[in-house]
Amino acid sequence: MVRAGRAGVAAGPTLAVVAREAGVSVPTASKVVNGREDVAPETRRRVTEALDRLGYVRRPRFDGARTLRMVDLVVHSLENSWSGAVLHGVEEAAYDAGLEVVVSAGPSRRRGGRPERDWLDRLVVRGSSGVLFGLAEPTGSQYAWLEQHRIPFVLIDPVLEPPPGVVSVGAANWQGGVTATEHLLSLGHERIAVITGQRHAQEGDARLAGYRSALAAAQVRDRAEYVRHAGADPAAARRHTLELLDLPEPPTAVFVCSDALAPGVYEALAARGLRVPDDVSVVGFDDLPEARWLGPALTTVRQPLAEMAATALRLLVRMMDGDRPEGTRTELSTRLVERASTAPPPAAPGGTRRAPARAAG
Amino acid sequence: MVRAGRAGVAAGPTLAVVAREAGVSVPTASKVVNGREDVAPETRRRVTEALDRLGYVRRPRFDGARTLRMVDLVVHSLENSWSGAVLHGVEEAAYDAGLEVVVSAGPSRRRGGRPERDWLDRLVVRGSSGVLFGLAEPTGSQYAWLEQHRIPFVLIDPVLEPPPGVVSVGAANWQGGVTATEHLLSLGHERIAVITGQRHAQEGDARLAGYRSALAAAQVRDRAEYVRHAGADPAAARRHTLELLDLPEPPTAVFVCSDALAPGVYEALAARGLRVPDDVSVVGFDDLPEARWLGPALTTVRQPLAEMAATALRLLVRMMDGDRPEGTRTELSTRLVERASTAPPPAAPGGTRRAPARAAG
Repeated sequence: MVRAGRAGVAAGPTLAVVAREAGVSVPTASKVVNGREDVAPETRRRVTEALDRLGYVRRPRFDGARTLRMVDLVVHSLENSWSGAVLHGVEEAAYDAGLEVVVSAGPSRRRGGRPERDWLDRLVVRGSSGVLFGLAEPTGSQYAWLEQHRIPFVLIDPVLEPPPGVVSVGAANWQGGVTATEHLLSLGHERIAVITGQRHAQEGDARLAGYRSALAAAQVRDRAEYVRHAGADPAAARRHTLELLDLPEPPTAVFVCSDALAPGVYEALAARGLRVPDDVSVVGFDDLPEARWLGPALTTVRQPLAEMAATALRLLVRMMDGDRPEGTRTELSTRLVERASTAPPPAAPGGTRRAPARAAG
Repeated sequence: MVRAGRAGVAAGPTLAVVAREAGVSVPTASKVVNGREDVAPETRRRVTEALDRLGYVRRPRFDGARTLRMVDLVVHSLENSWSGAVLHGVEEAAYDAGLEVVVSAGPSRRRGGRPERDWLDRLVVRGSSGVLFGLAEPTGSQYAWLEQHRIPFVLIDPVLEPPPGVVSVGAANWQGGVTATEHLLSLGHERIAVITGQRHAQEGDARLAGYRSALAAAQVRDRAEYVRHAGADPAAARRHTLELLDLPEPPTAVFVCSDALAPGVYEALAARGLRVPDDVSVVGFDDLPEARWLGPALTTVRQPLAEMAATALRLLVRMMDGDRPEGTRTELSTRLVERASTAPPPAAPGGTRRAPARAAG
């Protein structure tokens, strides 16, 4: 499985030739090539110049048998900060493991759809050592194809529950939902609405369940009219927020289960002349870089995307080496990042009061 | 230069075997494999299942001699929306050209710096067909190394003026600076400050020159105290904005030469109780996705990053084919994206008045 590359072209001079050119011993030249500290600056300069002049190609320092293996990262889209964080985590971990990363936007997301078979063929022909999927789940036949060709793969933050035995890495979404809701409860809010993504998406379902668990633990009533699904569309979040504000008992806080929906919530509140957080508090989920751009900056539950991606890469490397991870789902913990979008509700100054929940509205 | 990959492992069954398994003729199986429309759905299903069951590997449809060539994209960092847009443009254009993209974060940007030679060696050993650099310029010795190994390369949006002969793609930064400033002038502003990035960065210098040209054309005085350099740091933009507001004649508009600095400007204005755009107008540059998250949404000069990246990839492909682009610098045009952060200045209602500039303050 070692690739020939164009080693013939690139072989270049030996270290002995470089040492002669630089007027140093071979061990000294070797020290420079290997980045050792115990070389005089002037000597280092001479050797470096000789290396450049002669076009010396150092052997990569990775384990020979694994030299320049490549893994594929397939994401649903490259144009968003979710992918940026995932790519960052994968690239760093891959560099540390001596792997190169080939990146593609997921199949069937472009004009007319990318042909599924073509994309899989490329993985096989190229001899991909493994594949990471980010928000781009394989279809049933793609799963079968990957198994058939013995290409290991790991899902990062899958939207749907993966089939049994498929290895995935996600965030502790349920716990994150609890954290966001408990934060609002601790400020004195009881009328807490939730705007989540599409129905039956596993991460949204888990965050919503966390919200409900936190309300139940605090004996705060869970109101059906406070639970909204906005898909991935900030305009839908805006509409739902306006509807929530029109309720006989409008919420004093909104937990929006994805930062990407928060601009819609802010817009709706501004359209009604309501201030964040004085009139209505908002908590997000993800901690995308954009969360800091909102005014006021969004308090949100941080999902450690880069760490999740790095974890997925490391699991993939183990699978490439023939190992099988023990569990199939790894969850990394989330944490609250407090910024400026939450405060006690207008009717409950101080933020420490916790009235017993009423039995019914 | 055709890679062997693991063709031995992946060769799989012939199309004749697939056709027999599916109970169809070889031409019919071929139609399905090649995505032709003139096949009955039930036949297509049978063939597809047979393809999956047998693990048929279709030859990629690209020109045989170029099969699965790879290009490298080296960016200074993967964790920002600039890189997301560039990567998106490169990946789409590479897919269309039948190329795969290996992505790495630039050398010497990680903990302790990535060893320069190691990174270059990997390109050579792997037989990279070409390299795109995004905001990650090669050093002098890296330029020499790439030339020496005959690896073509193109710079996307270089910060510094590249050496003669080096091919690069950028935005029409001077024209963009003119556009932003003319927009503010047309609203009636004359006290227009500019906050740009680091000194002697070619794109910032060009935008600043565009600002000055537009002021000169409108016979509006160019005030030294209105020109500020904030590097890449929003906190510096915040400090400069506060200083601008403390001037005897504070500006009524700020042209911030990079969207990434705009949050600092907004924060400073909010800290002084000033509203955007009623009290002070703000225009950005780049049109990063984050520009829409600011409240009010940022009016900005759009830099077509994905198109610049795709153009760079196409230039690289020509160079890989032995062609030499005629010019070394390609500039794509910018355009104003009007959102909600600009309005006539408080003292000039109507926005059409244009008082003659005073000769001196």
